[in-house]
Amino acid sequence: MYRAPVSEIGFTLRHVAGLDEAMRQGTAGDLTPDLLDAILEEAGRFAESEVAPLAAAGDQIGAVWRDGAVTMPPGWRDLYGRWIEGGWNGLTGPVDHGGQGLPTSLSAAVYEMWNGASMAFGIGPTLTLGAVETLEAHGTESLRATYLDKLVSGEWMGTMNLTEPQAGSDLSALRTRAERRDDGTYRIFGSKIFITFGDHDLTDNIVHLVLARLPDAPAGVKGISLFLVPKRLVNEDGSLGARNDVFCQSIEHKLGIHASPTCTMIYGDGAGETGEAGAVGWLVGQENQGLACMFTMMNSARLYVGIQGLGVAQAAFQKALDFARERRQGRSAVKGATDMAPIIEHADVARMLLTMKALVASARAIAYCCGHAIDRGTGSDEDRRFWSERASLLTPMAKSFPTDVGVEVASLGIQVHGGMGFVEETGAARLLRDARIAPIYEGTNGIQAIDLVTRKLPLSGGETVRAFLAELEEIVDGVERSNRPDFGGTAERLRAAIGSLRETTDRLLGWVAAGETGSALAGATAYQRLFSLTAGNCLLAKGALADPDDASRAALARFMAETMLPDVHALAAQVLDGGDSLRSATAALA
Amino acid sequence: MYRAPVSEIGFTLRHVAGLDEAMRQGTAGDLTPDLLDAILEEAGRFAESEVAPLAAAGDQIGAVWRDGAVTMPPGWRDLYGRWIEGGWNGLTGPVDHGGQGLPTSLSAAVYEMWNGASMAFGIGPTLTLGAVETLEAHGTESLRATYLDKLVSGEWMGTMNLTEPQAGSDLSALRTRAERRDDGTYRIFGSKIFITFGDHDLTDNIVHLVLARLPDAPAGVKGISLFLVPKRLVNEDGSLGARNDVFCQSIEHKLGIHASPTCTMIYGDGAGETGEAGAVGWLVGQENQGLACMFTMMNSARLYVGIQGLGVAQAAFQKALDFARERRQGRSAVKGATDMAPIIEHADVARMLLTMKALVASARAIAYCCGHAIDRGTGSDEDRRFWSERASLLTPMAKSFPTDVGVEVASLGIQVHGGMGFVEETGAARLLRDARIAPIYEGTNGIQAIDLVTRKLPLSGGETVRAFLAELEEIVDGVERSNRPDFGGTAERLRAAIGSLRETTDRLLGWVAAGETGSALAGATAYQRLFSLTAGNCLLAKGALADPDDASRAALARFMAETMLPDVHALAAQVLDGGDSLRSATAALA
Repeated sequence: MYRAPVSEIGFTLRHVAGLDEAMRQGTAGDLTPDLLDAILEEAGRFAESEVAPLAAAGDQIGAVWRDGAVTMPPGWRDLYGRWIEGGWNGLTGPVDHGGQGLPTSLSAAVYEMWNGASMAFGIGPTLTLGAVETLEAHGTESLRATYLDKLVSGEWMGTMNLTEPQAGSDLSALRTRAERRDDGTYRIFGSKIFITFGDHDLTDNIVHLVLARLPDAPAGVKGISLFLVPKRLVNEDGSLGARNDVFCQSIEHKLGIHASPTCTMIYGDGAGETGEAGAVGWLVGQENQGLACMFTMMNSARLYVGIQGLGVAQAAFQKALDFARERRQGRSAVKGATDMAPIIEHADVARMLLTMKALVASARAIAYCCGHAIDRGTGSDEDRRFWSERASLLTPMAKSFPTDVGVEVASLGIQVHGGMGFVEETGAARLLRDARIAPIYEGTNGIQAIDLVTRKLPLSGGETVRAFLAELEEIVDGVERSNRPDFGGTAERLRAAIGSLRETTDRLLGWVAAGETGSALAGATAYQRLFSLTAGNCLLAKGALADPDDASRAALARFMAETMLPDVHALAAQVLDGGDSLRSATAALA
Repeated sequence: MYRAPVSEIGFTLRHVAGLDEAMRQGTAGDLTPDLLDAILEEAGRFAESEVAPLAAAGDQIGAVWRDGAVTMPPGWRDLYGRWIEGGWNGLTGPVDHGGQGLPTSLSAAVYEMWNGASMAFGIGPTLTLGAVETLEAHGTESLRATYLDKLVSGEWMGTMNLTEPQAGSDLSALRTRAERRDDGTYRIFGSKIFITFGDHDLTDNIVHLVLARLPDAPAGVKGISLFLVPKRLVNEDGSLGARNDVFCQSIEHKLGIHASPTCTMIYGDGAGETGEAGAVGWLVGQENQGLACMFTMMNSARLYVGIQGLGVAQAAFQKALDFARERRQGRSAVKGATDMAPIIEHADVARMLLTMKALVASARAIAYCCGHAIDRGTGSDEDRRFWSERASLLTPMAKSFPTDVGVEVASLGIQVHGGMGFVEETGAARLLRDARIAPIYEGTNGIQAIDLVTRKLPLSGGETVRAFLAELEEIVDGVERSNRPDFGGTAERLRAAIGSLRETTDRLLGWVAAGETGSALAGATAYQRLFSLTAGNCLLAKGALADPDDASRAALARFMAETMLPDVHALAAQVLDGGDSLRSATAALA
C-alpha cells in the first residue's frame, strides 16, 4: 500500500525548489515551515488511509456509464466528500472565494500524494483547478459570483472540453458551434471526445468549459471562443435548476485510470430540460479569444500532469523496493552466506531500484522547481517576469520528464517483481497501465519538445535558458568546492553534461533564429531529455549539498551522474547530427 | 489487422542470418529457396487470416477456469485444430516421428508471425516444442514411442513445470517430491505455479514435464529429477485412459496474454481416477539429472521467447505506421501546404517510427542469427562446436534484446497513436500488455545478462566472442569499401561502437577470470544492451550491403548508427565505471 514520502517531499520543496528561501523572504504568503509540514503530514495521512485503499476497486470496477450518466466506483463519492471537507480542493484557490491562497508548488507536492495513492482520483480535481484559474482570470463578475465559491470548495467540479475527433493536438479543426442569443447567453451544439470527468456522480453539478466556434468566426485557432456550460443551470438563489442540454454519450474502455471517466459529450441534441435544443452557455473572455483564455492555465495544467507521472513513479518505486527487500532468490554475489538472499542484494536488481529512485527524485525536483517558478511568476515578486519566463521554460520539462519517468519506472517496477509483476493482484501492473496516458494528454511529450525548442529557448533572446544554465553551473561549483569524496565523479560528469546542454542549446537557438525549423525539430525530443537529465541530476546534487549529513543523497547524485547521465552525450549527438539521417530515412518510410 | 512481413522475414533469414549460404553448402537439409518462400508465404497467410482475427476476443474473453479445468476462448480449439492440420506444429520435429525436420531458424521466423498475430496463441506450441526436444534427447524408447508422434503432430500439447512459489529464478529451492514405485513409475506430489498452458481444451491430452525431488536426493539443484506426467494416462493401444492426479487449481489474472492460461497445478491430492493419490509419472533422463535435461532445450526456448517480443514489436510498428499515414493533425514543417498533414510528416513522429523500425529489424537479425547458429550447432556440420558456442553466446541477446524491444516498441506505438493509443479498442495497448511478460519469463533479462557475462564470454577462453566481433568488423569493412554516400557516418559509428564493445568485453573477461564477479555483474545489463545494439546495427548494414538496390536499408542502418548507436558509449561508461557508484548507492537503499 502507498506510503506518502512526506519528508522527502518537504525537503525537495524547501531546499531544492526554493520554498525555504521564499518563506524567509516573505514571497510565499502566509506559509511557514510549521504550516508546510502540517499540511504535508495531513495530506500524506489522507492519501495513505483514505485514497489508497479505494484505488484497486477503482481500477477493477471503474467508472460505469448507463443511460447518459456515469456512476463512480463504490465509495468514491464519499471519499471525494471527505476530501473536499478537508479543504484540499481549495488549497491554492482565491481567498475571497473561500480558498487558502497557498502556493502552486505546495499544491503540486500534495497532488503528488493524491496521484501516488490513485492517479484516477488525483486527475479529477485538477480539471476543477483549471476551471478556477480560467474563471478567475477571464470570467465576468456574474460568472465568478455564481461559480467560483462552489468550484473552490469542490462542491462542484470543472471540466475542459477541447478535443473533437478531427481536432486533437490541432485545435484549428474544431467544429463545435455556438449561437448567440438575445439575452447575452449562447447555445452550444456539437460533440467532444476524451473529456476527463465529463460526467460522474461525485458532485451534483459539473461546470464545463467548452471551446466552440461562432458562426461568423475566422477560420483556424483565431476563431475559437470559450464558454461556460453547467450540467445543471443555476437559479438566482444559487440552487440548482433545469438539466442543461449536455450529456455523456459513452465512456472509453481504456488501458488504465479506469476510475477516471473519459467521456464523449454531446451538446445540443435536445435532451435537456431547458425547453429548447442547444446547451445554454456563457462566454468566458472575449469572442474568438478562447485559446488565449485556455493558455492562462497552460503551465499549471501541464505541471499537474507531470505530477501524475511523478506520483505513479514514486508508488512504483516503493512497491518494488518493498518487494526486493522481502523476496529471496539465489545467493548474493557479495555475501558468503549460503541462504537465499533478498533480491535487492543482486547487483542488477539494485541497479534497477537505484535507477528508479534517481529518476523519481530528479523528476520531483524539476516539477517542484517549475511549481515554484509559477508561484513567483504570478505573485507580486519584483522579479515576476524573470520567474514567469523560468516557469515557461521549465514547463515542457516538468510535463514530459516526470510522465516519461512514470512509464519507465512503472515498467522497471514490474521487472523487479518478476512473474508476480505481471499478475494484476500485485498492483505493479496497474501503475504501468495508469502511467501510460500521461506522456500523451495535455500536449504529447513530442509537442512539449516542440514548444521547448521553438518557443521557450528563444525567450528573452535566449537569456532565460542561459540564466538557468548558469544556476546549474553554480551547483556544480558547489559540488567541487565541497571536496567530498563521496561525490565521486559527480562534478566532472555534471560539468560535461552542462557542456553538452550549452552546445545543443546554442545550436538549436541558431537554427530557430535562422528559420531552420526542420533541423531544430528533428532533435527536439532528444534535447528535452538531455535537458531534463542534466537539470535533474544537478538538482539532486543541490539537495545533497543542502543536507550533508544524509550520505544517501550524494550517493544517489553520484550514481545518476556516473551511470545515467552519460546518456546526454548520445542525446547530444542526436540533436547535433541526427537531422540528416532522419530526413533520408523518413523518405523510405512514407 | 496484422500483416505478416513475409519478404522482410525471408530476406533476413537468407541474407543476414546466413540461410542462403547454408542452402548452397547443403547444411540446411532439404530446404531450398523455393520451399522456404512457399512455407513463409503460407505461414503469413495463416497468421493473417486465421490467427489474427481471434486475437482481440482472446484478449477480451481470455482463458476461463472453472471446476479444475480451463476453457479456451471461443474459436481457439478450432483454430488450433486447423493449425496442426496445416502441419505447423511439426515443422522442426524429428522426421521419424512425423516431423519435417526443418531448421530452427525457419521455425523462429514462422513463430514471429504466430506471435505477431497473437502472442497468446504463439506461446502455447513452444512448450510442446520444448517437450519434443527434451524427450527426443532424454526420453526412454518407450516414452518416445508413446508420446513423440502425438507431440510432433500437435494432437497433444506439452508443458514445462518448473516454478514453485519459493522457487522462481532459483530452482534449488524446489519442494515438489517424487516417490519411486516398484513398477518403475513414480508418484508426484506438490504444487507448481505460473505453468503456461498447464490446462486447456485445445487438445485431449497434455504432457507435463515436471521437476521434482526424490526422497534421497541431494540438496539444491543437484537433487532435481525430471518426470513426464500426462494429464490422462495412455493405454497400451495408444488410447486415452484414466485421468491422472494432476489438476489446475486456478489461473492468474494477468496484465496481458489473457488467452494463455497461467496455471497453478496441483499434483497428487487424490482427485484423479488412478485409484491412489499421487500423479503417475515416468522418469526422463537419469535421477537427479533433471536440470541438465532441461538445459537441452534452453537455447531454443529462450530464442522462442525472444521471438515473442519480436512478433509483438513488428505488429506494434506496422499498426503505428498505418495510423501515422492516415491520421492528419497540424501542418508539416517540411511542406508549404496549409492542409493538415499526415502525422508521419512531423519530425518527432517520423523519429519514433524509424526508431521502432530499426529496433524491430535489428532484433529480428539477432534472433534469426541465433536460430541459424542453433541449427548449425546441432547438425552434422564439421564446425559444429564453433556454431554451438556461437548459439550459446547469442542466446542471451536473442532472448533479452527482442523482448526489451517488444516493450519499447509497443510503448512507442501507443505514443504514436496519441489518445487513441490508450483506448483498448485500438489494439495498440494490448500489444504493450502482452509484451510486458517476455523480459521476465524463461530467465529474466537480468539473468540473461549474468549468463552472458559470466558463462558465455569465457567460452573457449574468449575466442567465441572475439570471432563474432571479428565478423562484425568485416561488415564494417564492407560498408567502408562500398563507398556509398547514403551510408553517411555509418561505418565510423559502427567502428567506434565495436571499439567500445571490445574494450568492455576485455574488461569483463578480466574481471570474471580474476573472480571479481561483483564488478562484472554491476554492468552486465548495460553490456548486454551495448552488445545487442552494436551487433544489431552491424547486421542491418550487412543487409544493406546484400541488397544495394533498396535504398531504405542503408538509410535505416544509417539512422540507427547516427541517432541510436551513440547510446553504446554511455552504456560502456556504465560497464567500466558504474560498479563503485552502484555499490555505494546500494548501501543507502538496503
